[in-house]
Formats: sequence, structure tokens, C-alpha cells
Amino acid sequence: MENATKSLLLILLLLLVCSLTLNVVFIFKRVFDDESELSWSIRAAKEAEGVATISCSGHGRAYIDSSLVVVDQEEGPVCECNSCYAGSHCQNFLPSCPADADRGDPLFLEPFWMKNAGSSAILVAGWHRMSYTFNHSSFMSKQLEARIRHLHAIVGNAVTEGKYIIFGSGSTQLINAAIHALSTHHNSSSPSKIVASIPFFPLYKQQTEFFQEVDYKFEDDASLWMNRMNNYSNDNNTNLIEIVTSPNNPDGQLNRARLQHPNAKAIYDRVYYWPHFTAISAPADDDIMLFSLSKLTGHACSRFGWAVVKDKTVFTKMDRYLSMNTMGVSQESQLRAIKLIKIVIEGKEGETLFDFGYKTLNHRWKILNEIISVSKRFSLQKIESQSCNFFNKIKRPSPAYAWLKCLRKEEKDCYAVLTAANIIGRTGSAYGAEDQYVRLSLIRTQDDFDQLVHHLKILISEEGSAKSI
Amino acid sequence: MENATKSLLLILLLLLVCSLTLNVVFIFKRVFDDESELSWSIRAAKEAEGVATISCSGHGRAYIDSSLVVVDQEEGPVCECNSCYAGSHCQNFLPSCPADADRGDPLFLEPFWMKNAGSSAILVAGWHRMSYTFNHSSFMSKQLEARIRHLHAIVGNAVTEGKYIIFGSGSTQLINAAIHALSTHHNSSSPSKIVASIPFFPLYKQQTEFFQEVDYKFEDDASLWMNRMNNYSNDNNTNLIEIVTSPNNPDGQLNRARLQHPNAKAIYDRVYYWPHFTAISAPADDDIMLFSLSKLTGHACSRFGWAVVKDKTVFTKMDRYLSMNTMGVSQESQLRAIKLIKIVIEGKEGETLFDFGYKTLNHRWKILNEIISVSKRFSLQKIESQSCNFFNKIKRPSPAYAWLKCLRKEEKDCYAVLTAANIIGRTGSAYGAEDQYVRLSLIRTQDDFDQLVHHLKILISEEGSAKSI
Repeated sequence: MENATKSLLLILLLLLVCSLTLNVVFIFKRVFDDESELSWSIRAAKEAEGVATISCSGHGRAYIDSSLVVVDQEEGPVCECNSCYAGSHCQNFLPSCPADADRGDPLFLEPFWMKNAGSSAILVAGWHRMSYTFNHSSFMSKQLEARIRHLHAIVGNAVTEGKYIIFGSGSTQLINAAIHALSTHHNSSSPSKIVASIPFFPLYKQQTEFFQEVDYKFEDDASLWMNRMNNYSNDNNTNLIEIVTSPNNPDGQLNRARLQHPNAKAIYDRVYYWPHFTAISAPADDDIMLFSLSKLTGHACSRFGWAVVKDKTVFTKMDRYLSMNTMGVSQESQLRAIKLIKIVIEGKEGETLFDFGYKTLNHRWKILNEIISVSKRFSLQKIESQSCNFFNKIKRPSPAYAWLKCLRKEEKDCYAVLTAANIIGRTGSAYGAEDQYVRLSLIRTQDDFDQLVHHLKILISEEGSAKSI
Repeated sequence: MENATKSLLLILLLLLVCSLTLNVVFIFKRVFDDESELSWSIRAAKEAEGVATISCSGHGRAYIDSSLVVVDQEEGPVCECNSCYAGSHCQNFLPSCPADADRGDPLFLEPFWMKNAGSSAILVAGWHRMSYTFNHSSFMSKQLEARIRHLHAIVGNAVTEGKYIIFGSGSTQLINAAIHALSTHHNSSSPSKIVASIPFFPLYKQQTEFFQEVDYKFEDDASLWMNRMNNYSNDNNTNLIEIVTSPNNPDGQLNRARLQHPNAKAIYDRVYYWPHFTAISAPADDDIMLFSLSKLTGHACSRFGWAVVKDKTVFTKMDRYLSMNTMGVSQESQLRAIKLIKIVIEGKEGETLFDFGYKTLNHRWKILNEIISVSKRFSLQKIESQSCNFFNKIKRPSPAYAWLKCLRKEEKDCYAVLTAANIIGRTGSAYGAEDQYVRLSLIRTQDDFDQLVHHLKILISEEGSAKSI
């Protein structure tokens, strides 16, 4: 054989070996690759990933259901921008836009779920669970209930052993269900009185007055009734229901029921009793405790909450309320809650939801305190660092809301002062308090918080000048 | 060059060309294939497809959330069996098991969604729409609203132009929201009276009595009030709210409001006014109309319904009810409704949802009629064939329920007669009617219907014998 032929043969052989190796690699990938098993789910998966790649400049996001619908013709998904941003890709900042610190929209946890996209996604088949009930019987998923109990055990924030769990469309629905269940039914001359300590979450009053059933009535301040009940310890005609929010919305205080009386019952709104908002000192063991997915994982959208209830009669009444009101809770929401809570529980590797949430809110609180500390016009509520059993260390403050006070006597309307400075909060009187207070939400998007910081800095830097007075 | 060397070269060259071609094909597939684009969605897609392949012998199905949870340890997904089937793969028929014809669980549409798995699946990212609101404002998806209007226009079953649409957690929540909105508020001496024509859906009475707000009261039979209101045409103190179900649950009749009076208002429950249940003769144009996903697509699980409302004040009041009660509706349910309604609208190729639903229910009704026709002990309600504008032809009956009557005078408790024959229905008195009637649900799974047919045939075959008397 000639040398040239030999070389040619060798080169061909080499090329063939390379090409065959590549063949083997491809074939191996096809046989063992995850994707190759997929069929009917591909369309939905592609749609979701396609939407996720749309750039919204870090100031918004496109969703699979955010298409524009123009006269029944659907256009492709579009960016939905954060407050103060606009444009097809949220690329335009709107400079005169006010900082929105109003609603407690828990978007601060969104980046965590973006980081955990792979484990937190769900594919819902068209035929997934069409029935009213799970296993021909309950409106509630047994699996979700088990996960919720497991979560409370791990976090150590609530005793669930020997207690009942009931699901609702957010804690919103459960508040009224609990009030309904505790109210005096017919056999009393006067309707039950609903009270809460000032400052309290406005919905309690709004909702109770709105539904105005024959059995109960909102009566505002718990402290007034504390004295009255103590004076009339034998008064059996007045039934009181106290709503206790702990940690409190708006001020983050770990409230306890103020009424101690045989005729007084308490509903504990515990939606903020999680390690990202507060130190967990001991598992809460109240008779009725409310929690929500909104404040645990940030999914306000799901309208999912649960109550932990000690007494069987109360549980049964609340269960009947849920049946009569909405026939239970969306099963799509329950499915999502199962998946999300699973990740909260499992989060051993990398940063957990609680780590992420605490770090974010503590950082925001620190920044806010630094800004306010140089001011003589405003003050913030005091929150102490506390030992947290969950993190097993001293936990610095990371409240969901700032409870800002205008200190100047002439500035009785603090909300107006802030509005004039391009900051939208919520006025104190909505919480039964004076209007010298304003609640500022710290759990919204980073953009919202950045705007708040920006406008607050300006406001405080102008403090000494004539303009601000 | 020798011949042998030549041959070897040729063979090598040929092999190389083949191998290279294969590689090109693989690379081409990788670049242009759908699946190769997927990354974070694969896990969810695999999970869903894996569960879908679990065999439940055609008498059940496994879901992604149907794992067994044993002391916080999760086992793989398991089959959830239809009534009367058991075993790890639902392979065991339980012979002594009664036919369940009780609840209106709309599983008859499940096979349609299994056939349309590819187009009806949704992948929900962990970070999908976490906010309370769509676009910083509404609890309701504008896209879903647009699709609902489009659907009504295509089906021709309701006028939505110039009207408001509001979402609720099933029509269940919307009934009470509508009653609340129409009730007399404080300014009248007597609370509004809620009436309905017998036989009526039991929930109306149960719900109204359960919530017993100060503003309204359930008063049963509409016909009693028809006479009274006609006699007192100047009576301005009595406000009446009539709930009209059309087609009616239980008997499928196309009811109209019976009260014609300035102080009488009607709420039309139109959840069965779709082509699979009844002929669509004209678009309904009532002041308040209720619809539900449950009876449109079969997804009772989603607790999603909507009201079409003419009057702005009523809409605003219902909207406030929704805010106060549950802060709107689960966005996961809204997302699913968008996808499912899209398929109902688009269904041009192949069998549409309405075709499938009508065919199934008409077939069931025919079988039932054949069985009952030889009986002198039982009768069914009469439903006429009617011209349907949607199908553009004469539509034979396909009601959701059979309204069975026991004809023997001595058999006053028809429910007991059926129960003794291993058939569970719902007794007439629940609908305000006599107990000689029983409602049998025809919209459940095929297994449930087969069981019903089986036990009915036995019951009727024994009609002449002493045993049955």
C-alpha cells in the first residue's frame, strides 16, 4: 500500500470513529433523555417557557395569559410592567410616578420562585380532578392537609396535633366563617359583638359590617370592652368575639387577646407568624388560628388560606359555611399550594424561602430605619430583635409593614403629607387609629420599595427647608 | 492501488457518509425540535405524563396530587377509583355497591378532555401571577372576560353587549352575591323575600337561611306570592327576589319568572343553558344571569362561575360582595377557564365539546326512557325535541337530570323505594316537591350511569312480582 493511501485510510478511519462516537452520544441522549418521553405536555411546556424568555427589562413579566385580546383576536403575550414602568418591554421609567406602598401585595417573594422555577412548576392536564370532591367525599385535599401539618411542625409556629384544619379562599373568607361559627345563634337577646385592638386590619370591620348577619355586630375597640366585661363578670347576655392579629397588621406587634371572660372568644389571625416576618418564639396554640398562602409563599393570587381549629363544633360550623358560601376552595389553588409548600418544607439545599424572605425584609427595614433615623418629622414603630427557634439565632426585625407616624402636631393628616411627597400609603383611621399614622407596605416588588426609598429620601432631605412645612 | 484497498476505502467512505448523515439529522432535530427548547418545565411535564400513563383499568385515574402521604413520607401516585371499583388499579368491581345518582358531578365530560389533552394542558410557573390583582387593578382577568363574551356570542345563549360581567367561586357564591345586591337595605320595614318555583335547587333555600342576613328571608314557593302580589299591586313594602333556574334543576324545564311586579326582581340561574343540555332557541336577555364552568366544561373542581349583569348598581354591589367575601376568585381557576373556554370556542376540527356532551347525554336519556317506558310503577318528566339555533337542527332531549316519579299511591317515599333497589338519588322534598319524586343525576361518570341502568333494569323487571310490592 502506498503511503498516501495509508494516510487517507487513517484519516477516514479517524473521521469515522469521531462521527460514530457522536452517533452513539446522540442515540444515548435520545434513549435516556427526559424530554424524549414527552408528548401531549410539550405544547403547554413550550408555551410557558416561551413566555418566560420575553424580556421585560427586569421591571415586569409576561404571563401565559397576558395576551392582548383585540376584538376576539388574540395577540402574543405582552409584558405586564411594575408600577412606574411602561413600554412594550417595560423599558421606560415614569419619573413623576408616585411610590405605591399601599396594598400588602407580597411580590417580594417573586424572585425566590423565579430561582426555583424547575421545582415549583406544575403541569395541569385538562382532565385533572374535574369533580367537586377529592375521593368522593371532601372539598379538601388530604395531601395538602398533611403537608400543612408537616410545615407547622417543622417551622414550630403552631400546634396542629389533635386539631382540625379547614381551607378557605384566603384568610378573608375564613375570618367571616369563624365569626359566623362563633356567633350567638338565636338563643341570645343581643347579637355577638366583634372587637379588635386598635390599630387593626380594616377588613375586619368592613367585612363584618358588610355582611351584617342577624347574629353579630362590629363594635370596634377591644380595650373599651375589656373594662366593661371586667365590671360585669356575670353578664351572660353579651357575647364577644375578639379578632387578634399577631404579629399585628399594621405594626408587627405580637398581640394577645385582651378580653378574658367566659363569654369572650378569640380568633387569631396568624398570617404573619412565619420566620420571614417575625421571630418564632413558640408554637402558637390558640383555639382558632388563621394562615394564608399569600403571606407564606407570596401567592396572593391563589386565594388560599387555612384555619387550625381546636373545637369540633366550631370546625363543623365553619365547614358548613364553606359549603354554603363557595362549596369549598378551588382545587387548582390547592394543587399549587401542595407544590409550593413542598418546596418550603424541602428547602434544604441552597437558600430556603424563609432565608430569602427574611433577608429581603430585614434589609428593607434597615434601609428604612436609616432614612427615618435622621428625621425629626417622622418615626417608625419599635421592633426588638428576638431569639427565633426556627433560625436558631437572634432574629433582627423584618416586619411586613412600617407604621409611620408624623411627629409634628400641626400635621394631623400624615397620609396627605406623604401623598404630597409622591408616596401612597394607607391612613391610620382605616386601622381605627389617628391619621397621624400611615401604613407603608414593605412586601411589594423591589421596584416599589426602591421608589419608596427614593421619595422618602427627598422628603426627609427637605425637612429643614420652608417647602416641607 | 490494490482492489482490496479500493474496496476498503469505499466501504469506509460509505460508512462515514452514513454516520455523518445521521449526525446531521440528529443536529437538525436538536436545533428545530420542540422538545430541545425545554429546560425548567421538563420536570413538571414529565411528572404529569408519568401519572397519566398509570393504568387504572378504565375505572379511575391517578393525578399528580393523588400520592399517598404516610407519616410525612410521600409514596408514588395511586389510582383514585370510580364508585363501585377498588384495588390498586381499580381492577375490582364491587358487586353489592349501590348506583350513585346523587350529586350533579359533571364527570360525563372527562373523556372529552382526555381526548384533547395536548391542547387543554397548562404549565403554571411557580412565579406565575402572584399578585392579588391583574394589571394592578382588577381581581378579574380581562382576557377571560373577553373569551366569555365571545363564547356567548358564538353559542347564542346570552346577550352580553352593554352588560357587566363579574366572576365568582362557582355560581354558588354568585347567588348569594346577587341576593345581597338586590336586597332592600335598611330603608324598608320588612326584609326582602326570596322565592323560587317548586321544584327548585335546594341550595337556594339552604344558603339563604344559613346566611340569614338582616335584609332578606327565604319564603319558598313563588306561586303563592304570585297571587299575593297581584292582589296587592300597590304594596310597596314587600320586595321579592325570585330565583329562576332555566333550564330547571331538577326537571329541565325552561322556566320563566312568575312574578311580574315593580317590586319583584329575578335572578336567572342559567348554568344549564348550554347546547349539551338543552336547545338554544334565543339568546337569554335577563337582568341577572348566572353561568358556571362546572356545567359548561365539567370542571366543578375549579369553583368558577360568572354573572352577566345589566344594571351598574347591582354589578357594583356584587363586586363589593366578592371583594369582602373572598377578595375575588382564584387566579389559577381563571387561568384554567381561559384555556378550557378557548378550546370550547375553537373546536372546529373534530368533535366539539357541545357535540360530545349532547351525544353522551342524549344517549343516556334514550336508554333511561327505554327502561322506564315498560314500567307502570315509575315515570319520567316529559321533554320535547326542539329546534336549536346553535346546532341548526332539531335537538332531541339531553337533560342533566331525570325527575323520576313513583306512580303507586302507596309509595309516597320514592327515595326509599330506590334506595331499597340499590339506587341513590335525591328526594323530592329537598326541591320543595313531594317525596314521590326523586332526582337522578345523569351527568356523572359512565360507570355511575352503567350502575344506574343495571339496578333500574332489575327493579323494573321485578315490577310484577310480589317482591317489589
